[in-house]
Amino acid sequence: MSARGSLRIVGLGPAGEAWLTPEASDFIANASDLVGYGPYLQRVPCKDGQMRHESRNREEIDRARHALQLAEAGRRAVIVSGGDPGVFGMAAAVFEAIETGKPEWREIDVAVSPGITAMQAVAARAGAPLGHDFCAMSLSHNLKPWAVIEKRLAAAAAADFVIALYNPASAARGEGIFKALALLRSLKPADTPVVFARAAGRKEEEILIETLAATDPARADMSTLIIIGSSETRVIARDTGAPFVYTPRTARISR
Amino acid sequence: MSARGSLRIVGLGPAGEAWLTPEASDFIANASDLVGYGPYLQRVPCKDGQMRHESRNREEIDRARHALQLAEAGRRAVIVSGGDPGVFGMAAAVFEAIETGKPEWREIDVAVSPGITAMQAVAARAGAPLGHDFCAMSLSHNLKPWAVIEKRLAAAAAADFVIALYNPASAARGEGIFKALALLRSLKPADTPVVFARAAGRKEEEILIETLAATDPARADMSTLIIIGSSETRVIARDTGAPFVYTPRTARISR
Repeated sequence: MSARGSLRIVGLGPAGEAWLTPEASDFIANASDLVGYGPYLQRVPCKDGQMRHESRNREEIDRARHALQLAEAGRRAVIVSGGDPGVFGMAAAVFEAIETGKPEWREIDVAVSPGITAMQAVAARAGAPLGHDFCAMSLSHNLKPWAVIEKRLAAAAAADFVIALYNPASAARGEGIFKALALLRSLKPADTPVVFARAAGRKEEEILIETLAATDPARADMSTLIIIGSSETRVIARDTGAPFVYTPRTARISR
Repeated sequence: MSARGSLRIVGLGPAGEAWLTPEASDFIANASDLVGYGPYLQRVPCKDGQMRHESRNREEIDRARHALQLAEAGRRAVIVSGGDPGVFGMAAAVFEAIETGKPEWREIDVAVSPGITAMQAVAARAGAPLGHDFCAMSLSHNLKPWAVIEKRLAAAAAADFVIALYNPASAARGEGIFKALALLRSLKPADTPVVFARAAGRKEEEILIETLAATDPARADMSTLIIIGSSETRVIARDTGAPFVYTPRTARISR
């Protein structure tokens, strides 16, 4: 390696600067090179003397390799990711690139900066649905067989976890969320509370509190995150605002 | 209600100001009254004209009621919580207090501000162990029967989730983590990677990368968080530093 380069993998959170950590801001401010998917890079203000390297969505592993090459060449590279890069984000792609790449890459100064991930933002807006044991799953079956997703959904229902579903649908794959909800409806009560959320924290934010029976999978898109309650999850009706949804810290024996 | 009060439930993150969101800082700065467990309140700088209300650890529901009374009386109350108040934190206690309290409390202006939770900090320090489907469980059986914990651990192993264990032990209950690890050892391979972490992000931080077989439950205390890998989780050895642990974004059919 020439000059001592570094790679920081930074989470922008789900929206705006209110949820951007000071550590993430500092790493971005001190970067010589910013690497990221276009819409995330566009959330970062331009700064004199900083190089920007925009890439497309499906090229995560190439983006990771590009950033590692920059660090290897002595640059202070920062990969920006939405949410938390450690939760269905860029961090795993970087470590995969390191493991499968040049041996020298293992010795690069790499660090991850955590961020608020979508389920936390949605939970905060709705109340406290993640207040007790929960799981987080991606429904993207670009990266795993559908049989794995079904097995995990069934186990999550059996465990009575609150379930946060990431990537429920995209233009390329719309049917997964239909199958996932059908499976969960066969395993959980119809009146299980559901938080159906889009773009939490952004101006187009939409948070719907509904039931598992009423949830319409056709509404899901790339900005959607869905939280499905456990048997303990409760809804508090209010006169003057949207209901609160929360999962108590206590759990009885269920089923 | 007299003057229009409010209650904000704020996460300080696991450590220091580097992971404290601007939203959380703003809510704290604008509070008339700060309510919290002593060690968390002590992380918040004192400010002229602000009232501080310290409470003990086990009094979560009383602390929540106290904050709601302040808001009802027209104060700008802020409850401070470590990590993310929505993840095994104070938010669920506040909504429980609202649901079981005076009907007027349902109409109080209440909002949750998310924070970085311990598993995110630990994951960032270790690499990206939460890079794919995972669950988060509390081992505190003050609040639920041990049978529920065992059932969930078994289901999490069957689902091949990465497992983040919160509250593995305290002075009052030490044996749970012994039983939990014994159960997981009977269900998962001995060489499953484990991140055994204490005080992530604080000066006394300790992050151990080890195997499920080698993990010593006797070391767990109130500051410990344990992440147990899935069958996909991998360890990258390095010459110049601690190994990286990550869970790839892809999953094969396992078992």
